[in-house]
Amino acid sequence: MLKFNRSEFLFIRNKINSSEIESLLNKIIINKRISKNFEVQDISSTKNLKDNSILFLENNIKFDKKNFNNIILITNNINIFEETKYKDIILINNFNDAYNIIINFIYSHEDSLDYFDEFDLIGNSFISKNASIHKSSKIFNNCVIGKGVKIGKNCVIKNNVVIKNTLIKDNVIICDNSSIGTTGFGFDLKKRGTLFLNPQIGIVIIDNNVHIGSSCTIDRGKIDYTYIGKNSMIDNLVHIAHNVRIGDNACIAAQTGIAGSANIGNNVTVGGQVGIAGHINIGQNVVIAAKSGVTKSINDNSIVAGFPAVDIKEWKRKVIKERKNGH
Amino acid sequence: MLKFNRSEFLFIRNKINSSEIESLLNKIIINKRISKNFEVQDISSTKNLKDNSILFLENNIKFDKKNFNNIILITNNINIFEETKYKDIILINNFNDAYNIIINFIYSHEDSLDYFDEFDLIGNSFISKNASIHKSSKIFNNCVIGKGVKIGKNCVIKNNVVIKNTLIKDNVIICDNSSIGTTGFGFDLKKRGTLFLNPQIGIVIIDNNVHIGSSCTIDRGKIDYTYIGKNSMIDNLVHIAHNVRIGDNACIAAQTGIAGSANIGNNVTVGGQVGIAGHINIGQNVVIAAKSGVTKSINDNSIVAGFPAVDIKEWKRKVIKERKNGH
Amino acid sequence: MLKFNRSEFLFIRNKINSSEIESLLNKIIINKRISKNFEVQDISSTKNLKDNSILFLENNIKFDKKNFNNIILITNNINIFEETKYKDIILINNFNDAYNIIINFIYSHEDSLDYFDEFDLIGNSFISKNASIHKSSKIFNNCVIGKGVKIGKNCVIKNNVVIKNTLIKDNVIICDNSSIGTTGFGFDLKKRGTLFLNPQIGIVIIDNNVHIGSSCTIDRGKIDYTYIGKNSMIDNLVHIAHNVRIGDNACIAAQTGIAGSANIGNNVTVGGQVGIAGHINIGQNVVIAAKSGVTKSINDNSIVAGFPAVDIKEWKRKVIKERKNGH
Repeated sequence: MLKFNRSEFLFIRNKINSSEIESLLNKIIINKRISKNFEVQDISSTKNLKDNSILFLENNIKFDKKNFNNIILITNNINIFEETKYKDIILINNFNDAYNIIINFIYSHEDSLDYFDEFDLIGNSFISKNASIHKSSKIFNNCVIGKGVKIGKNCVIKNNVVIKNTLIKDNVIICDNSSIGTTGFGFDLKKRGTLFLNPQIGIVIIDNNVHIGSSCTIDRGKIDYTYIGKNSMIDNLVHIAHNVRIGDNACIAAQTGIAGSANIGNNVTVGGQVGIAGHINIGQNVVIAAKSGVTKSINDNSIVAGFPAVDIKEWKRKVIKERKNGH
Repeated sequence: MLKFNRSEFLFIRNKINSSEIESLLNKIIINKRISKNFEVQDISSTKNLKDNSILFLENNIKFDKKNFNNIILITNNINIFEETKYKDIILINNFNDAYNIIINFIYSHEDSLDYFDEFDLIGNSFISKNASIHKSSKIFNNCVIGKGVKIGKNCVIKNNVVIKNTLIKDNVIICDNSSIGTTGFGFDLKKRGTLFLNPQIGIVIIDNNVHIGSSCTIDRGKIDYTYIGKNSMIDNLVHIAHNVRIGDNACIAAQTGIAGSANIGNNVTVGGQVGIAGHINIGQNVVIAAKSGVTKSINDNSIVAGFPAVDIKEWKRKVIKERKNGH
Repeated sequence: MLKFNRSEFLFIRNKINSSEIESLLNKIIINKRISKNFEVQDISSTKNLKDNSILFLENNIKFDKKNFNNIILITNNINIFEETKYKDIILINNFNDAYNIIINFIYSHEDSLDYFDEFDLIGNSFISKNASIHKSSKIFNNCVIGKGVKIGKNCVIKNNVVIKNTLIKDNVIICDNSSIGTTGFGFDLKKRGTLFLNPQIGIVIIDNNVHIGSSCTIDRGKIDYTYIGKNSMIDNLVHIAHNVRIGDNACIAAQTGIAGSANIGNNVTVGGQVGIAGHINIGQNVVIAAKSGVTKSINDNSIVAGFPAVDIKEWKRKVIKERKNGH
């Protein structure tokens, strides 16, 4: 995992000690074990455990049996709660509520009413006083570059581009009207609407030599980050959801959408109007034909087509057969 | 129907009396019956009849046999014209021409060359002098908030968002680069191009607690309004056409498109890249799987998938069968 | 072919004589024949040969046996090189590298770090000092109109629209947040990333009475131009790639994507979420049903549907058959 400092992008609304979490959650607590008191410094994910943090652990998620000193677990899973090795753990009855209450207590993020950012108008764009742009990079007109954003060397950010909650390395080009670091679609299906959104407190990391087309949307990670690997090329009107990881040298054609937490290997080639489901793995060197709907993980070096996407040879046989039957 | 005052969004170019309509349409009139003279105050639709108005009534449209006093009908349908109960009615030979001539005579709308709006630069965004934004709501940078727009309490409008011809209630979040209240795709298929556009003189109404993602487009109604119900959540790059009605608690994933006048019930869940045809009804609690193409109305509580969308069990059987045949 | 003056949009970084090309390409030259020396004035394409120009000629492309005086060919095709009628020709081993080296030597384009444009803030939009907008046309707020752009009479350019490298004729309407003249997705699949992009030095030409919706992206031509014919109507979130040619009176519904160099006849009607493959021909008066994927050229007067798109009657038979089998 790459590191980033969350507090450069968000505001800390309140410091909290592990012992205070209980009172915040008191309406939804079922049980608890708190062994010691420490000041919470960050939020962990199962992929990225941090000292002095909170880890929200939902039903049926496996995690590494690492050192859990100074990590307080919040779970709705009785089996996890009953594992005695966890010294600091709270069992609650509503996972989304617990996440929302705790995160909104600690952080002010861009969907919070009290979030703010201060901008200078520099060369026809609004640049946060807390953004950092290398002097060799160019920002065109009507852009907004938010708090904490870092842009490396020799980047070209075209017109009306919005970049927030994002780290950009060198030689990156982002075309007109794209939105990078926007809020992911994270919520409780059973409690809809803005009052119950899951705060999205992660970022986007865009590695060297990436090209992003016009009117793309790249959502920031929920807790960690959405990642676009080196030399990747993304065409216009592409949607990349929160927590997606795209490897190096990807080529993704227009109007493709990649759902949350999909994990895409190096050297993939994706046609236009493809949909890739969330939480699946696309291997190295995979080719996905235009308009495919990929619903399952795909092995390295595969070529797939259709919806649901299958090996392209199988898809072609199906198409030929249908044509014969059709006449 | 919710009420709105059209003149807050548009300009009245000319007042017109019912007796003057005839001369405006004189090149395309076939027949007429005018019983009395009144000043036209508004335009009716079949769903929303108003006193002192004009109602354009096309071929084969049913309407409620309500009191038609002080409504002047304009129709290209000889059967409607021959109904003697209508005292004020004009039969014309080209429906689109009649609509365009009358509406463009009365109204200046944002596609008119003489339409204008006056803006103040407030906090890095252009806000119409005739817009109203509750002081608890926040507008980020490079937004445009047009004439007549009202934004309720505790809303967050992010960067580079354009909102025109729209009423927004409380706790609404609209993400970067979205366009709300834009011109619907209304025209005569036989006479294409900007010189023959059907003026779109309706609005958009967004109810409480709605979340709208980045780079969405929501077109205003043609005469009435496009409506997004309470607590609905719309992901990035979603297109919602004119006159669509979406109920409460909708959840609509990225890159979905909903064509004109579709009517969607409460509590629907729609996957990414779905297409929903115009003028159909989607029932309550319907679930539509990603990448579906919904061509027909869907009953309450259905789960559908595929293109054309069918019951998801049927779709799965088809997919399994194709896979077997494919090998 | 319509004419345009490339130097109005780009900057000439360096003048070059035909005899100097060799030294620029010296690492990738295999062989050469140079008969005379002339100053290079422009870049030709196979469809648009120009005097005193360079023509990049790839494998297996046919071209007209026209007068090749004062055109220097650069090819990776040994068969072309061996045609003795070409007096000025260079054989190189990497076509993309040759194109990138030569074009980036001659031109500074908007993806170049040294490209710049000077803007005036006119009526809440940034207008290049080298753009020309007829006084009868209206530009709303937060637009960017770049160098060389010409906008004809009675056009309406709404809010947050970016227009670069584009010629627009009369009565054109472009809705909010659209990007016109953006960089096409041109690159070497084998060498990905911004360091190896193929410079896109063409433009977009939009003819009279065209309507373009919100959040559309229209990429400029690679060498020539992307063209939208008279009276064409394009809905929201439509992607049109580089070198596409759309005839007169097109009607293209929302979220459709048209890949590079597709050639579309007059009077086509295209439903929403359609994908049209690159380098194919769509005939006159063709109708393409919503959500179709068009993979092959389509004859005049056809009506097609499905993916891959077939005659709509065949598609309907297939759908009916599948439904029967499904139960």
